[in-house]
Amino acid sequence: MKNIGIVGQGIIGSSWALVFARAGLHVRIWSREKEKATRSTIGATIAALTGTGLDGDADTLARISLHETLDEALQGADFIQESVPEDLALKHDVLSRIEAAAAADAIIASSTSGILPSRLIEAMARPERFLVVHPLSPPHLLPITELCTTPQTSPATLEVVTELLVAVGQRPVHLHKEIPGFALNRILGAMMNECFALVRDGILRPQDVDPLLTEGFGLRWGIIGPLAAMDLNAPGGIADYLRRYGGIYEIVARSRGGEPVLNPAFIDDLAQALQPVFANKDPALRRAQRDRGIGELRAARARILADADGDGTTSG
Amino acid sequence: MKNIGIVGQGIIGSSWALVFARAGLHVRIWSREKEKATRSTIGATIAALTGTGLDGDADTLARISLHETLDEALQGADFIQESVPEDLALKHDVLSRIEAAAAADAIIASSTSGILPSRLIEAMARPERFLVVHPLSPPHLLPITELCTTPQTSPATLEVVTELLVAVGQRPVHLHKEIPGFALNRILGAMMNECFALVRDGILRPQDVDPLLTEGFGLRWGIIGPLAAMDLNAPGGIADYLRRYGGIYEIVARSRGGEPVLNPAFIDDLAQALQPVFANKDPALRRAQRDRGIGELRAARARILADADGDGTTSG
Repeated sequence: MKNIGIVGQGIIGSSWALVFARAGLHVRIWSREKEKATRSTIGATIAALTGTGLDGDADTLARISLHETLDEALQGADFIQESVPEDLALKHDVLSRIEAAAAADAIIASSTSGILPSRLIEAMARPERFLVVHPLSPPHLLPITELCTTPQTSPATLEVVTELLVAVGQRPVHLHKEIPGFALNRILGAMMNECFALVRDGILRPQDVDPLLTEGFGLRWGIIGPLAAMDLNAPGGIADYLRRYGGIYEIVARSRGGEPVLNPAFIDDLAQALQPVFANKDPALRRAQRDRGIGELRAARARILADADGDGTTSG
Repeated sequence: MKNIGIVGQGIIGSSWALVFARAGLHVRIWSREKEKATRSTIGATIAALTGTGLDGDADTLARISLHETLDEALQGADFIQESVPEDLALKHDVLSRIEAAAAADAIIASSTSGILPSRLIEAMARPERFLVVHPLSPPHLLPITELCTTPQTSPATLEVVTELLVAVGQRPVHLHKEIPGFALNRILGAMMNECFALVRDGILRPQDVDPLLTEGFGLRWGIIGPLAAMDLNAPGGIADYLRRYGGIYEIVARSRGGEPVLNPAFIDDLAQALQPVFANKDPALRRAQRDRGIGELRAARARILADADGDGTTSG
């Protein structure tokens, strides 16, 4: 896969262009403004990333071209990423035009965060080559990318897109069924709803929400995810952890009107599925690496924030 | 405040000892094992943190002493941090003994994550000098610390503890009312409940949960909190953001049996409260600092994980 077509040149489309171009792929953007704002925006982004390893090589910008017609932009494209505004009628129109202009074997992806793929394919003649590729914004900075297929999406489409994303440095996660908000925004939403409820109920001040993340979980999750952390925080691993401490999950769910998710069978299944992920390294070594990693990340963060000369980048 | 008493020498108690000792305070730990395991554990932790700026100075370990009797351990202590196991009867017993042994003006704090302060003070004669000081574990790595008072806690107690924690490099956040799970574990719990539901419903595989945090939100929240991020992601700031995109919060809440938290009046109040926090810096500068910061943090993280020689520290 060598040629990428980009449709939609806002924050997400421009960011996708950089993701692919810095990995050595040729990127063609459909743009009526030919070679103006979008190109200089991407150039400025590249310049701002100097020294981070995320700016690619000297030819990154040269691998991106802008084209006035859709036919021209999609010429030779193996993979097309659509990132136009979140309007179903607009997406239907754009996706059917992409389908008509694209090569027969080209794969078409949408960056949508808010429209389910089952709705998007209503306008498509060949849904087997379509899926949602939703990044956390902006993808040139944050690797995680969720892929949401429909039952019509072919296995080959999912496989090729997964390989493409890994090759350009993203971290694809496949959602096996569609759900409103997909995974990333649902997880964020659940957390924010709890934060908002704590503010509403006079427990937290608004300005105290962000530090809970920036001075706490953000630092931890930069190094170790929540399930891996649980696995290290009880002698018998994650199942032991959830049996000992899982009561809080039920309390939180019920206090907000929901039902508990955890039960003994779920905990056993979860632990069994994670066993091969966690069992390849001694817990004592993993704990030492976690602690050293968090300490180093915190030190790096302190230097980065000090360089930025102020606390305006965090809300703390 | 110069002398700290530590009661309970598990992971949390030992970590608190390091937090205070590396900041130059004298720390006395109540320990029946006099000068053995706890001291060498803390020494090993200090050694492992060399180069991170979290190991204090050459005298850090020397400022920590172990004492066989509670009277001896609390001698001269201005502030006492209790971190014994999460058992109400045990906590009642230990807190009343601390109260009897401590100086009249000493402040007493509990590290509890699971017992409400209103229950803990049942055993205390002078609840005005008591509050919960709950860290994210371990506090010597993660600065965030939630303080939960009772209506009996004196304003002076809260003020002195807040100043102490800031002085030793922690980031205190005051919960104005008690609630099961306090804030940190409720926010984590809400998020994990959503993750568990996505796994239960066959949308996510268990091994795909952690990367959503380690390769996504963790990196973002290392630099910018979620509310500050919202403020930069709509032309009119956070109120504009929540009016445009807040629908997902209602969808997530209702889909799990809950009620929406956001409404127009809440959004206006939130935005007004946050205005002084966000308005001190130009949004374009804040965006540039956010992007540069995330890029640098991602680069630092890649180096840290590569140094740890493997992917075992994350679940990815």
